[in-house]
Formats: sequence, structure tokens, C-alpha cells
Amino acid sequence: MQNFSFQNPVKILFGKGQIANIRSEIPTDARLLLVYGGGSIKQNGVYKQVMDALQGLYIEEFAGIEPNPHYETCMRAVDVIRRKELNFVLAVGGGSVIDAVKFIVAATFVQDADPWDIIAKRLPVTAALPFGTVLTLPATGSEMNAGAVITRNADKSKLSFMSDKVYPRFSVLDPETTFSLPAKQIANGVVDAFVHVAEQYLTYPVGGALLQDYFAESILKTLILEGPKALEHPLDYEVRSNLMWASTWALNGWIGCGVASDWATHAIGHELTALFGLDHGQTLAIVLPGVLHVLREQKREKLFRLGEQVFGIYNNMSADERIAYTIEAVEQFFKQMGVATRLSDYGLGAEAVEAVAQRLSERGWKLGERHNITADVVREILMLRL
Amino acid sequence: MQNFSFQNPVKILFGKGQIANIRSEIPTDARLLLVYGGGSIKQNGVYKQVMDALQGLYIEEFAGIEPNPHYETCMRAVDVIRRKELNFVLAVGGGSVIDAVKFIVAATFVQDADPWDIIAKRLPVTAALPFGTVLTLPATGSEMNAGAVITRNADKSKLSFMSDKVYPRFSVLDPETTFSLPAKQIANGVVDAFVHVAEQYLTYPVGGALLQDYFAESILKTLILEGPKALEHPLDYEVRSNLMWASTWALNGWIGCGVASDWATHAIGHELTALFGLDHGQTLAIVLPGVLHVLREQKREKLFRLGEQVFGIYNNMSADERIAYTIEAVEQFFKQMGVATRLSDYGLGAEAVEAVAQRLSERGWKLGERHNITADVVREILMLRL
Repeated sequence: MQNFSFQNPVKILFGKGQIANIRSEIPTDARLLLVYGGGSIKQNGVYKQVMDALQGLYIEEFAGIEPNPHYETCMRAVDVIRRKELNFVLAVGGGSVIDAVKFIVAATFVQDADPWDIIAKRLPVTAALPFGTVLTLPATGSEMNAGAVITRNADKSKLSFMSDKVYPRFSVLDPETTFSLPAKQIANGVVDAFVHVAEQYLTYPVGGALLQDYFAESILKTLILEGPKALEHPLDYEVRSNLMWASTWALNGWIGCGVASDWATHAIGHELTALFGLDHGQTLAIVLPGVLHVLREQKREKLFRLGEQVFGIYNNMSADERIAYTIEAVEQFFKQMGVATRLSDYGLGAEAVEAVAQRLSERGWKLGERHNITADVVREILMLRL
Repeated sequence: MQNFSFQNPVKILFGKGQIANIRSEIPTDARLLLVYGGGSIKQNGVYKQVMDALQGLYIEEFAGIEPNPHYETCMRAVDVIRRKELNFVLAVGGGSVIDAVKFIVAATFVQDADPWDIIAKRLPVTAALPFGTVLTLPATGSEMNAGAVITRNADKSKLSFMSDKVYPRFSVLDPETTFSLPAKQIANGVVDAFVHVAEQYLTYPVGGALLQDYFAESILKTLILEGPKALEHPLDYEVRSNLMWASTWALNGWIGCGVASDWATHAIGHELTALFGLDHGQTLAIVLPGVLHVLREQKREKLFRLGEQVFGIYNNMSADERIAYTIEAVEQFFKQMGVATRLSDYGLGAEAVEAVAQRLSERGWKLGERHNITADVVREILMLRL
């Protein structure tokens, strides 16, 4: 195992009715900013549960966090916090709302610099307001990690930052809050969680990290078993519990401890979202099979493990056939969830490939666990995904 | 899944050389008590690494924590802390040293009550000194949890307590510190970790807790694959990494979230240690197969899972045969690790069974996930283990 230092301080409140218990997790003198998205929480009862739990606190509301939250929107929330002298934030929603809040609580303390530099120039986060979350869309893992992805609308930049200062103090995971999600969001969430695991698992073998492999496979198996059931039986509490908990574990940091990580699929996918507006999960479903195919020699041993341990591929095919079959099984799972896996499914062609390759060429990034995925390799990957 | 609230704030520093990094985890004005056991850390170089890392700090030493640490010994350490006005404790050793330190840091703040009441009467721990750990014996998971088991020598009581106040601030897990362990301690540690998982996994199925089952099976598979290798190749860093990390995860709380737990094997085993001096791991190897056999109907579905997922028992035997075969596989694994599994292997007979049953009868406990293991059932279990 590679050396690591890690701590994850997030308190989890899991289960039906847990929103009622958030009051005791928030300081009694809190002046609170309640942040949410497009208002679905007002239709599904979550807003009411939250307001009931917070009775007696001073509350300002900030609605309208968009999917792939905008820097510009976040800065409007920062302004509210400063003007109203608020000291605690509650994010109610999915990964977009939670990511936005992570940036908001950090940007609030940036005085003499451009807050966007937290992302663009890795400006260290020296302080952040405390915040909690009520998760309503299992997908990103943001409810139990210290990372966030923010989009600057002005130049269509979708980029991430991480800081130990932006761990939620607590996160409520009530599977019932996910009952009303549209099928598309369930599906995107499962794909997102699946790819989070893949980014930390499908790299190269690290000796002495057997438990991490088994844990990664545990999460994948849970998603594969339960994802399709959630589409068929949207009100099944047990299925939703499994998906919610698996999504959190896909990116709470523990399975990535002591092993290599890739993150090329996410980096490429972010450009597809920023440039063409595809859902995050859709971009991942397009890109991952391409990354696995082009990097199949580098990822050979882990693809073998994936095939055997997760998809039960043990038969008499040649090694190369087994790997091809495994990559195909990944793509089929995304399709089974109802997420299309080709650029052409979204009306995109070779020009889109060129645009993404161009962006990544400008950034000069070398992606992947071996830092060998240059813009040219990205082009090769995406041309396979037309 | 059952509702739960959980947080595990322990910072892990994993890997070779990590002891050198503990200085930055300890306040600069710390007046530190260094607590250790019988002195093996002076032979294997760990003591020197710790002292090098702590250079410049005020340090008092407290050596001589015994296996199954004594309340009486702990109280002598409390006295040193009070007299020397110490404010931070570093535990260097295995679970006994760490458990002792948990009691010490809590007992230091007990003024108007008997500190033993923390254990005997569940006196709430209202404050505790901060402490860190350097783990040298993977087994108990104490390095990443908030529980401890203490023995009052005066009346041979071996009992536990838990408090969120006694989570370590940090724990160093350097697999190299385990290279010099005697085979017996490696084996006992693997059995202990195995049974920690069993206590949280071999109960009854809880819907929506699929990930917890997979995680539990991941830990068991790691122990089964790597345990025997550690006996054969004591200096294999990768094997020791796997065992160390798996042992921590066997009892850091996460696999027990949202599911039932048993703990009968531990409760019975503690009496065997307190009365007859058997190693903790030895008692578990004796008791668990008996618990599984006597409670096999109640644990039926989870025993099936264990057989299939961990031991690969899928064949055409009858259901009852499969369960018997699975329990046999557990016992065989303990034997393979070199831990004898019968009371008679340790010179104990029916009188010992009676003595344990008598103690548990006096305590009035009803053990297990269904609270149906009375003293009579304990007698039945142990008579099968003669």
C-alpha cells in the first residue's frame, strides 16, 4: 500500500425521519443560510421537514443553484452571507447544491484575492463557514467528502477544488427523500457513483491494498444489483438505502487511500458538460468505456479483477477477449440504466471531439494514473465513442 | 437499513516511516505521557522512532500496561498525569495499551465518583485528555474506535465501555512495526479481527444493508487470504499492510452501521480470559464455532451468505450440511492460524464451563442479537467446545 494520511470527520445521520434531528447538530446561535436548487424540495416535502426541524433559528434562503453550479451564482450567495452576517449554511439537495455550498463557505472568507483562484490557482482555503447537508440525490459523494466541482459560466470552465476546511459537519441521508427523483437522475447518479469507484480502482495494482480492491468491488456490485431495481421499483426503501449508502462510499475517500487514482474520465467528461451541456452522468457513460479500451494494457490487471470479481467473467476466452468482454459489460450496465453511451446519441460528432481535445491541449493536462493521457490520447478515446 | 448516526473522526497515518510525522499532530505545548507495555517497543526500534519524533516535548513515561489491561494499573497512570499536570497521552502498542489509555484519559477527569463506574455503571464520560496512538499489533481495532475493555484485577471483571470522548486524535499504522511480532500474536490478532466482523455480520439479514454485508465479507476474505501468509512470511510488507488495514476496519464502526450486532462471543470469551487467563484470541476461537452452531437457525441466512461469499461453498449439499460445513470452515481457519479451538486444548473442562455460566448468570445478561443467549445457552455453547 502507498503511504497515506487521511481523516473523514463527517457525521452521518442515515434513515427515514433523520431530518428532524438536524437541530441538535447546528449551533443554537446559528444565523443560517438555507441553500437549495430548483425547488423540487418544496414538492417532495423535504423543504417542510427541514423548516420544521429548524424552527426558532434565524434563516435566510438562497434558491436557484443550478446543475453544474455556477461560480457566479455562488458569489451571489456569498454576498447574502456577508450582508446578513450569517454563520452557518445548510445545503439541501444533490451534489450540485452541496458543491456550491462548499465553494460558498470558502469564498466567504476570501478578502484580497479573486475567489475563483481557489479553483484556478489552488489558493489555499484558510477558513470556511461551517455547514451541513441534507442529501436528496445519491450520486456525487459530496455529502461525505471535501471536494467540489464548480463551473464558471463566463468562460465555460468546469473545475474542481478540495480542502479539508469544506467537509460537511453532518449529512442527512434519508432514502425516502429520493423516492420522487426522475428515472434519469437515478440513472445518472448510479453511473456517477460507478465511475467514482472506477477512477480509484481501475488503475494499476498496488501491493498490500487488497481490502481497497474488495471494498471497491463491493460498491460496484451493490450498484449493479440495486441500480436497475431502483428504476423498476422507485418506492423500494431498501433498494434506495443500498444505492444511497453505496454512492456515498464511492467517493468518501476511504477506498482511494493508499492506491493510485485516475480521474481522466471525469476531466474529459467535465469538458463535455461545460461545452455542450450534457449531464455529468451522461458524459461519464460515454467516456469511461473509451478510457478503458485505449488504456487497456496499462489497466490490464485491474480489468481482469473487475471482470472476475464483479461481473463473474471466468470463462475460457482468451485474456484479450476477457478484457474486451469486461469493458463491454461496463457499457452494457450503463445502457441498462438507460444512459446512452455514444456521443452521437447526444447529437455530437467529430467537431465535439476536436473541441474537447483542444481545451485539454490548452490546459496542458496529462491525465490518468500514469499521467500519459495527453490531448492526443483524449482525441483517440473520444473518436471511439462517436 | 436500520437508522443510525455515526461519525469516526480518527486521523490515520498509514505506512512505513509515519511515526516520524506524529509531531505535527500533537500540540506544541503538550506535556505528554508516553504509555506502553512490556518493553518490546524498545527492542524493535519503535520506541526510538517515537522518541526521535517527539524531541523537544516534555515527556513522562508509563510502562508496564499488561495484556487485558488492569484498572489498577490504569489508575496509577492517572495519578502520574495528575501529579505532573500532563495534557496529552500517546499510546504505543497494541489494543491493550490503547484500551488502557482510553480509560486513563477518561478517568483523569472523574473527581467525585469511582472511576470504575465508567465501566460498571455506565457513568458518562464528560471529558477526556486528547491522545494519539502508534499501533504495533493489528487485532482489536481500538486504534480507530471509541471502545475499550478493561479488567479489574481485584474481582477478575473484564468489561467494556464506549464514549465518543475517547476516539484517538490520530493513529499511526506502520506495518513494519508488526514484523517482530511472535506468531502467536499474529494469529490471535487475525482471529480477533475475524470475530469482530462476525459479531457485526453473522446475525440476521437487514434489508437495505447490502454494502455492509459486502464490506464485512471483504474484510473476512482479506484475513483468510493474508493471515496464513503472515505466519509463513513474517517480513512481507504487503501482507502486513493488508492485515493491519483489515483489522482496523473490522472494528472502526462503519460495517456495524445500520445492522444488528451480536457480541455474545466476546462477552463469553471475556469471562474465559478473566477467570482462566486465556488469550483473548484463543477464547474467541473456542467460543465462536459454538455460538454459530447453537444459534444456527437464528443466523441461518447470514451463515449461508458467509459460506457462499467468503468460503465459496456453493455445492449440492443440503442446506443444513452447507451451514455445518461453513461453521466447520470457520473453525478450520482458526486452526490453520495455529489457534486451538477447544477448551480441552487449554486444559479446561466442564468445571470451567460451569464457572463461566455462573458468572454470566450472576450478571443477568441476555446476549446476542436477539437477547436470547442466557446463562443456560452459554452452558450449552461451551459444553460443545470441551
